[in-house]
Amino acid sequence: MPVSQRERTVSWRDGRIRLIDQTRLPQEVVWLEIADEATLAEAIRRLQVRGAPAIGAAAAFGLALAANASPATTLEALRADLAAAAARLRVTRPTAVNLFWAIDRVLAVEASTVAELRAAVLAEAERIAQEDIAACQAIGRYGAALLPAAASILTHCNAGALATVDYGTALGVVRAGWEQGKVRHVFVDETRPLLQGARLTAWELAADGIPLTLITDSMAGYFFQCGAIDAVVVGADRIAANGDVANKIGTYTLAVLAREHGIPFYVAAPTSTIDLNTPSGAAIPIEERDPNEVTTIAGQRVAPAGVPAANPAFDVTPARYLSAIITETGVLRPPFPAGLAEAVARARRKDQT
Amino acid sequence: MPVSQRERTVSWRDGRIRLIDQTRLPQEVVWLEIADEATLAEAIRRLQVRGAPAIGAAAAFGLALAANASPATTLEALRADLAAAAARLRVTRPTAVNLFWAIDRVLAVEASTVAELRAAVLAEAERIAQEDIAACQAIGRYGAALLPAAASILTHCNAGALATVDYGTALGVVRAGWEQGKVRHVFVDETRPLLQGARLTAWELAADGIPLTLITDSMAGYFFQCGAIDAVVVGADRIAANGDVANKIGTYTLAVLAREHGIPFYVAAPTSTIDLNTPSGAAIPIEERDPNEVTTIAGQRVAPAGVPAANPAFDVTPARYLSAIITETGVLRPPFPAGLAEAVARARRKDQT
Repeated sequence: MPVSQRERTVSWRDGRIRLIDQTRLPQEVVWLEIADEATLAEAIRRLQVRGAPAIGAAAAFGLALAANASPATTLEALRADLAAAAARLRVTRPTAVNLFWAIDRVLAVEASTVAELRAAVLAEAERIAQEDIAACQAIGRYGAALLPAAASILTHCNAGALATVDYGTALGVVRAGWEQGKVRHVFVDETRPLLQGARLTAWELAADGIPLTLITDSMAGYFFQCGAIDAVVVGADRIAANGDVANKIGTYTLAVLAREHGIPFYVAAPTSTIDLNTPSGAAIPIEERDPNEVTTIAGQRVAPAGVPAANPAFDVTPARYLSAIITETGVLRPPFPAGLAEAVARARRKDQT
Repeated sequence: MPVSQRERTVSWRDGRIRLIDQTRLPQEVVWLEIADEATLAEAIRRLQVRGAPAIGAAAAFGLALAANASPATTLEALRADLAAAAARLRVTRPTAVNLFWAIDRVLAVEASTVAELRAAVLAEAERIAQEDIAACQAIGRYGAALLPAAASILTHCNAGALATVDYGTALGVVRAGWEQGKVRHVFVDETRPLLQGARLTAWELAADGIPLTLITDSMAGYFFQCGAIDAVVVGADRIAANGDVANKIGTYTLAVLAREHGIPFYVAAPTSTIDLNTPSGAAIPIEERDPNEVTTIAGQRVAPAGVPAANPAFDVTPARYLSAIITETGVLRPPFPAGLAEAVARARRKDQT
């Protein structure tokens, strides 16, 4: 579906946040209308909204909800209520830096009256959402240019329209490549434990008519061996200053396999995902989720009762495995540190103009 | 559980084959009593009995069922009925060579009367089952000697008591290591699509009180990175003459990860899994199973309707990734071709004495 025909994953409508409930897909398309910031925090925790850029935009709108709900009559009191709401949103998920980036950006807006601040918070959230769409489209253009003709792409998890406000990062590259006739096929890792590939990426690609094959995460190596994969394109939850990338658990394995087979490995992410304050991947906090996500599938227990399971939600791919990082400011090649710093500076300058 | 307290996965009782139904584990422990070779063929196809050595033993007993059921009154007619039954059993699953090995071995028995042939077929099947247990115990001893102290082992799929007649190949190594106090912990890949790790290996290890952590297949890379894995031990469905190993889909990825992290990668298998007639992995047929095994989990559809999925059940790990192959005749190190041929010759000599 072209952007114009697809409703945004996250939007603001009549004083509420409108979100597609990603836990119900693909069985049901359910839209949530979220009226308070506590409900939003729970929606982020439960992954009803997920994907680093989408979480960032949702949290920004969450501050707009908090600003509207605040009974404050002084700027100071409203700033205090916003700070409290921000604190509650910050603790929902630890790894994706876009959450913290968006909150900080909204909290930094200037205003001289309470009414102005309320308006400025919502305007900044809207700007973050708009910019995310533009960033994804730019990422798509830059990324598609890297692809060979008739490319067969492997992707992991969902870095699509559902993970962003619209269009997607990794799937932005796939979409742009498909529109240009450069993408022939997409291999979609199902992405255990929560099956974002099987449930969400397969749903997005099927809706757009892009040919795909769903595979279990364990099959990627086989298809590399078969020569069936021309490039790997994934999203990111946080990119450290040295280029190390935190992304959905299993991403690192794909990077190792890609290098083993001489296949390019691309990370597609907006500059809001770059965290210059995190020197390397070792400093990125990895969210450990409920082991029941591993021991049960679709509500059914698969492992014997009492068996312990681990559930790290992300892993870190060291920068040395990356062929390039595709941002809305252009394509970064190794060595990454200078390029990442410059991309962030360029994005900030553009933001201020 | 020590071998003596655990009922064999495959056995002969009162003229029937007794099998634990592996599709019902871990929810229910259901024993099947199979009275005819057609039902056995279906049980193999449906994975009620699975694991290369277990399939081999089951097929051998299946020929005993066929011999008993045959109305033949001449040796020639009985041989013809056995050949027909063998043909029906051979087409159940293509990759594990133990199936063909066991069938060939039973068909080769000598006898001079119909009654003698019936008895010899059953005796050979019993011998195959007995030898498999002894082989697994020898594999366990040889393999445990390779492990470092306080070893943390990663295994994939189920190469345990359930995949053999008893004790297991990869889990034979784990069990022997545990009995010797050398194994500290086991990481168990859940092994999508059919979750043999989560359902079967976790069940076996928990029953034996061996500490384990269940992980999704996508998490192995993360635990390698953490330094949590000291050795990988897996089974095999077929080992080609050059040392290439077909095993459960996802095994190749673990081999690549193990090498990337400088961790030993061991294949544990009886010599019945070695196929000197297959020159290399490229010649091993890879079973492609129903895509519904990927798109549905525990009976529930996880992917959108109509989404195509691939389902290769095995992959091939090239010999160059293997640290050693552990057989009942000893530990083979690279280069493998001479060692594999010698191991098969040694096992055959022992068999004839």
